[in-house]
Amino acid sequence: MVPTLKLASGYEMPIVGFGLWKVGAETCADTVYNAIKAGYRLFDGAYDYANEKEAGEGIRRAIDEGLVKREDLFVTSKIWNNYHAAEHAEKMAKSQLETWNIGYLDLFLIHFPVSLEFVDPKDSKFPGWWLPDGSLAATAKVPISETWKVLESLVDAKLVRSIGVSNFQSQLLFNTINEARHPVSVLQIEHHPYLTQPGLVLGAQENGVQVTAYSSFGAQSFLELPEAFRGRAKGLQMLLEHETTKGIAGKLGKTPAQVLLRWSTQRGIAVIPKSNNPERLAQNLAVTDFDLAEDDIKALSSLDKGLRFNDPGYYLDKPLRIFG
Amino acid sequence: MVPTLKLASGYEMPIVGFGLWKVGAETCADTVYNAIKAGYRLFDGAYDYANEKEAGEGIRRAIDEGLVKREDLFVTSKIWNNYHAAEHAEKMAKSQLETWNIGYLDLFLIHFPVSLEFVDPKDSKFPGWWLPDGSLAATAKVPISETWKVLESLVDAKLVRSIGVSNFQSQLLFNTINEARHPVSVLQIEHHPYLTQPGLVLGAQENGVQVTAYSSFGAQSFLELPEAFRGRAKGLQMLLEHETTKGIAGKLGKTPAQVLLRWSTQRGIAVIPKSNNPERLAQNLAVTDFDLAEDDIKALSSLDKGLRFNDPGYYLDKPLRIFG
Repeated sequence: MVPTLKLASGYEMPIVGFGLWKVGAETCADTVYNAIKAGYRLFDGAYDYANEKEAGEGIRRAIDEGLVKREDLFVTSKIWNNYHAAEHAEKMAKSQLETWNIGYLDLFLIHFPVSLEFVDPKDSKFPGWWLPDGSLAATAKVPISETWKVLESLVDAKLVRSIGVSNFQSQLLFNTINEARHPVSVLQIEHHPYLTQPGLVLGAQENGVQVTAYSSFGAQSFLELPEAFRGRAKGLQMLLEHETTKGIAGKLGKTPAQVLLRWSTQRGIAVIPKSNNPERLAQNLAVTDFDLAEDDIKALSSLDKGLRFNDPGYYLDKPLRIFG
Repeated sequence: MVPTLKLASGYEMPIVGFGLWKVGAETCADTVYNAIKAGYRLFDGAYDYANEKEAGEGIRRAIDEGLVKREDLFVTSKIWNNYHAAEHAEKMAKSQLETWNIGYLDLFLIHFPVSLEFVDPKDSKFPGWWLPDGSLAATAKVPISETWKVLESLVDAKLVRSIGVSNFQSQLLFNTINEARHPVSVLQIEHHPYLTQPGLVLGAQENGVQVTAYSSFGAQSFLELPEAFRGRAKGLQMLLEHETTKGIAGKLGKTPAQVLLRWSTQRGIAVIPKSNNPERLAQNLAVTDFDLAEDDIKALSSLDKGLRFNDPGYYLDKPLRIFG
């Protein structure tokens, strides 16, 4: 069994899960079903990943076949930037719940602290950062508190068990905590040895917010994406091939991927790797039953370059500004 | 005459001013009076600087002697962390206005995006980050919107002309803009070639928020402070003595200080240096009548190390954590 983290909501969240970003809709139901067979209990989805329906199908198949019960699973989804206004957020969240079709969601996050102008899903189902005509969507004057209140109403209605945020900086995280009626249970952020953000992680944990790391392997997650996303990876040593990672892996008889995942889980940070390879699927799950030496954790953390790969906009103090 | 920046409130703010941080109360009235004589029209104060009364005296002396009229001046103050809750903020702001005793304030800022537990000024007049017993004050669950609404009420009451924020990161700045009834006119931040924060500056300016730089000379401002503050300056080349700064200064026949100030003003960023030396006082004001070459601006900006000197807490993603 994968250990769990206790959330401020009172619920438990597995410290290792399966990330659904970039899992194609056509293979997603099988992928999720097979991941459950391999022992995964947490699935990290989002409206923007365009595979909620299929992920829900994979989950229902596993439940129907008696592999797991719904309450054995922990399913996360996220609300997208265009639907932050109260009227849209409520409608969209309920539509997402219907799409998953698995009863409740365990965790629902604000995907980005960026409110974009509304795009009707009828005109563009998964708009990303763009309008249907291909131009970039403008920001909308919707404060985070407005969206957060909708998330709280989903908790009240028992549609969602825990709520949280993603891609927030420290100050907005603390401000959201200060405004919250239901607690901020989780902060999901890009987190790997090239982007450690120690103050953000410690500040979250000290305030009762559990942290989930995405892109645990660094640039690896971005290699298959368009050029703009890969920009910062150019000429950079991949973390999976870095001598520090490989040295620790060799010493412990683990894979570099396992070392990078354990670097997070050992510090109480959840991880959500993705793999289509059955062997790696199993390896990625087995990242809580060995320990890195304290010095090895420090050696990995000292690779920090403040290097962010998922940096689509202007809501950071030193952005790449991929778009626009 | 010093050029001005147009604020979102409709008022104009001089692009060069005099910063009152670390100006001792005993000399402050004379310092302000002499700075007005030297041509300064903007004074940047704060409750925490513990010299509002004396700064107001210097201003009134200059007005009484007919050197300037009140409307020729632009006076900034800031509300301190312990007084963010509505009940305290309103009382404290009005008390600060009485202390200045110059009618209205031109600009009133939230000094830090950190709400600390209330400390009664009767027990500790200028508490800084500490309780009267010397221990660090705990944070208080007061969202920024609560304090911001008090600032807006001061505008409604015509006690304050423009309002803004200081030491905010991008996300909380944008969120405050999205919540505001009266515009966020100014963002005041630490800004020098070792800490450029290009996304924060550009994001503010693109959203109608004028930026004021403090600590334009970098570590220089922190050398006289306690060890904790100086930590990051150790082994670091002072910007005023850096070959890049000196090279540009030599070429233009200006002082290194003038070059560093012009690096900001040429990009539309206000500066608020401080000096007790009459010659430097005049030099610091004369930083809008010459231009750096575009390449020289870039050379200075390329010194960026993300190096923050004023970093007293946990509200940043990668803090120094001077205290605690």
